[in-house]
Amino acid sequence: MTTPTTTVDPRSTSHRAWVVGADIDTDALAPGAYMKFGIDEIARHCLHRVRPEFAASVQAGDVLVAGPNFGIGSSREQAAAALVYLGVRAVIAPSFNGLYFRNAFNVGLLLLTCADAHRVAEGEALRLSPREGFVERANGSRLACETVPGFLLDMVDAGGLLNLLKQRRMAPHATSNGVSSC
Amino acid sequence: MTTPTTTVDPRSTSHRAWVVGADIDTDALAPGAYMKFGIDEIARHCLHRVRPEFAASVQAGDVLVAGPNFGIGSSREQAAAALVYLGVRAVIAPSFNGLYFRNAFNVGLLLLTCADAHRVAEGEALRLSPREGFVERANGSRLACETVPGFLLDMVDAGGLLNLLKQRRMAPHATSNGVSSC
Repeated sequence: MTTPTTTVDPRSTSHRAWVVGADIDTDALAPGAYMKFGIDEIARHCLHRVRPEFAASVQAGDVLVAGPNFGIGSSREQAAAALVYLGVRAVIAPSFNGLYFRNAFNVGLLLLTCADAHRVAEGEALRLSPREGFVERANGSRLACETVPGFLLDMVDAGGLLNLLKQRRMAPHATSNGVSSC
Repeated sequence: MTTPTTTVDPRSTSHRAWVVGADIDTDALAPGAYMKFGIDEIARHCLHRVRPEFAASVQAGDVLVAGPNFGIGSSREQAAAALVYLGVRAVIAPSFNGLYFRNAFNVGLLLLTCADAHRVAEGEALRLSPREGFVERANGSRLACETVPGFLLDMVDAGGLLNLLKQRRMAPHATSNGVSSC
């Protein structure tokens, strides 16, 4: 009897959607009033302005589905780190602020750029295929999204850029990408 | 007689604007037909689809002023590297594709997120203050833009992430930011 190997990509599990609107700014994600506290306290107030129940009710593996311009505002890294702290698996939106996009992957948060994100309903179960470039809805239909390059998925899987660099320093011959890909 | 020290921030020199529209994609910047060639050949065809005269006429220090969603499409790094190769000082636009934003700073291209970029006229002389968060027009008025964090400006000044890391490895005590800021 052999130990079965899994054929299930962890990304193929389904994720419950929380739907929010357009122009979600970093102050909504990491409210300025709590920036002097640790990430646990900041996360406790994440999105309180638009979804007061979010921080207390979100479960590990859930995803956030938003309108355009997600992550505008100040470049505070906590606006991405708070979602990671809460266990949010990914943010799906038609467009992201550039600095937010950079910060998010650096702290291990997956972002999926998806023009049709508005079709997703609150609470819907989604499967994510960032490498192939689609989100699969509960009814089996697919929403195209931009493919995410391997070096960014590596960053997400490692839990952020710093963890990825630490892993690579420990096992430099096991990697295919250099730091140039960060 | 002493050698005079310069008090002029290179960013305060003026830059001639090339104006293009919205949704400039990476295939317009680095056409697929030339991707098998080197960056010199790719750059020679940069933006040919929308401004056929651009690559031959752009001068070092010029800036590109664009509409929303600059850099959409595939994540090819050459779409940013071609502008660097041509000497383009910065791209100014209301919004950028997330992957393009990441690639651009990694290869040393300054991007300024500026909601009012559409006000800039073709050929206008602009002064850039990325650290302070504005673009100054020829008439002295200012267009607000998102401030660019110091670690990204360091990356631009160094000519990209790899050059920055090389510099820091050579002079590790002269730096204030770690690789975590990349």
